[in-house]
Amino acid sequence: PHQPDGTSGLVLVKNPHLDLMEEDILYHLDLGTKTHNLPAMFGDIKFVCVGGSPNRMRAFAQFMHRELGLAGDGEDVADICAGSDRYAMYRAGPVLSISHGMGIPSISIMLHELIKLLHHAKCRDVTIIRIGTSGGLGIKAGSVVITDTAVDSSFQPRFEQVVLGDVVVRSTELDKDLAEELLACSREIPDFPTLIGHTMCTYDFYEGQGRLDGALCSFSSEKKLEYLRRAYDAGVRNIEMESTAFAALCGLCGLKAAVVCVTLLDRLEGDQIRASHEVLWEYQQRPQRLIAALIRKRLGLGPALLPAD
Amino acid sequence: PHQPDGTSGLVLVKNPHLDLMEEDILYHLDLGTKTHNLPAMFGDIKFVCVGGSPNRMRAFAQFMHRELGLAGDGEDVADICAGSDRYAMYRAGPVLSISHGMGIPSISIMLHELIKLLHHAKCRDVTIIRIGTSGGLGIKAGSVVITDTAVDSSFQPRFEQVVLGDVVVRSTELDKDLAEELLACSREIPDFPTLIGHTMCTYDFYEGQGRLDGALCSFSSEKKLEYLRRAYDAGVRNIEMESTAFAALCGLCGLKAAVVCVTLLDRLEGDQIRASHEVLWEYQQRPQRLIAALIRKRLGLGPALLPAD
Repeated sequence: PHQPDGTSGLVLVKNPHLDLMEEDILYHLDLGTKTHNLPAMFGDIKFVCVGGSPNRMRAFAQFMHRELGLAGDGEDVADICAGSDRYAMYRAGPVLSISHGMGIPSISIMLHELIKLLHHAKCRDVTIIRIGTSGGLGIKAGSVVITDTAVDSSFQPRFEQVVLGDVVVRSTELDKDLAEELLACSREIPDFPTLIGHTMCTYDFYEGQGRLDGALCSFSSEKKLEYLRRAYDAGVRNIEMESTAFAALCGLCGLKAAVVCVTLLDRLEGDQIRASHEVLWEYQQRPQRLIAALIRKRLGLGPALLPAD
Repeated sequence: PHQPDGTSGLVLVKNPHLDLMEEDILYHLDLGTKTHNLPAMFGDIKFVCVGGSPNRMRAFAQFMHRELGLAGDGEDVADICAGSDRYAMYRAGPVLSISHGMGIPSISIMLHELIKLLHHAKCRDVTIIRIGTSGGLGIKAGSVVITDTAVDSSFQPRFEQVVLGDVVVRSTELDKDLAEELLACSREIPDFPTLIGHTMCTYDFYEGQGRLDGALCSFSSEKKLEYLRRAYDAGVRNIEMESTAFAALCGLCGLKAAVVCVTLLDRLEGDQIRASHEVLWEYQQRPQRLIAALIRKRLGLGPALLPAD
């Protein structure tokens, strides 16, 4: 809704201390308010896509470069955070593509600094989408899951943040309209199944997700399957490691957010990721193709035609 | 102690399912028991050093190459995990150098796969050391802290691991003799202060560590300082994001483990990391120089002479 004070669509940084700082160094991005002209560099950004792997986010920026019909082949896209090896950041037109590493702490550091970046740059009406990989539950490997609700390891829609030693519980709601818009876009891409479901977010890939193949495992195959089936019955269709923190932080800061992950395997059938590099690479393009379709539609460019490569 | 069955010094994988697997794919390292001869590649490894940044762990491998007097200049050291961009791994003689990204979930994935790698490779008597960066508490920036005990955000020596939705509490004890041995080595390096203290490990860099400069902050400068002073009074001398999980996992698997972190700032004086790239780079070499001194001493090569570069 339009605000009378002209703040409509701005990112809502909720920190009264920030305006009192002479300079803000975004340490892990190797950017800052005194060293960089952030409004000039980022003021026109409308879409931010984030994902774990730096190579994948580079490939996504190159893919979007082509999808948006920008000049040049986009192959030489530059890492805007080249001075830091913590994250990689690329842009293609109004689309920013950033890696966040693995797990809640890693994505949280990136999101704090990204949200401050969007605030300093005075960006408006930004849509943010996590495009990730995940383990599926009871669905075919290669399926794409659009998250309606991110839940924790007890299947609850909450994110517990420790603040000065105390636990604060936050909502993990995502933008329902954006999820529906993404599902509508997926109907134009017949090559792979896309569905809406709950996404479970854990702090650990092995014991925390009930895998039998970690360095430690104290439970039986039966107990594992019982846990995963309870998750399925609670509506969980895939499992990853960032969605609750992503939903909580973006929601508090007024960003319309979605999580779109491809599943690399069905966890009811196994734990190890056995598909070939080629198959996995094609799986990872699926969320990218869906997001490209959404962005093209929003920008009035018509449906996506090219498969990612 | 020597075991009659010849298992003395081996890594203790605690997972009865592992031996039943025909193949073990270490997915995030892009290694596996069928695709790689792990005993030939890694059987002689005696020291494993881990740290967050891939560039830093590459520089450490190059530095160790020189310190160990190996043939060649070590500049072209190859990334053993080049097929994955999740982690980077290098070796120099009996020393393995691996990046783990930021936060407990990221280091946990790496450690599960590393511990299985050491198990499959039949490594013996491995010492593992995390060389990291951290925020200091009441000590000069650039000080090196050897962790005696890793504590959580309530200053307790415990790591809470969720297993199939239930919380399991684990000890975060580190090897006391190794910490003392490192402190003794530090006495031969007069250029920077080294001390032993507790290390607090958090899930978040901003709100979780009481920073006033995140995208969200709901507390005052006074409340922040009160929390950090309580941490100091509990014996905490630095704050980082991996030590409790590292101590717990290595401890359970029988690895002698240490955490050695340099402090990039004193958190009682500020939140932003303002030192120049040059100063920060020199700080990051300090734990490396200390570990090199330990490894040279263990291998009978005498004290380290070269500063890292």
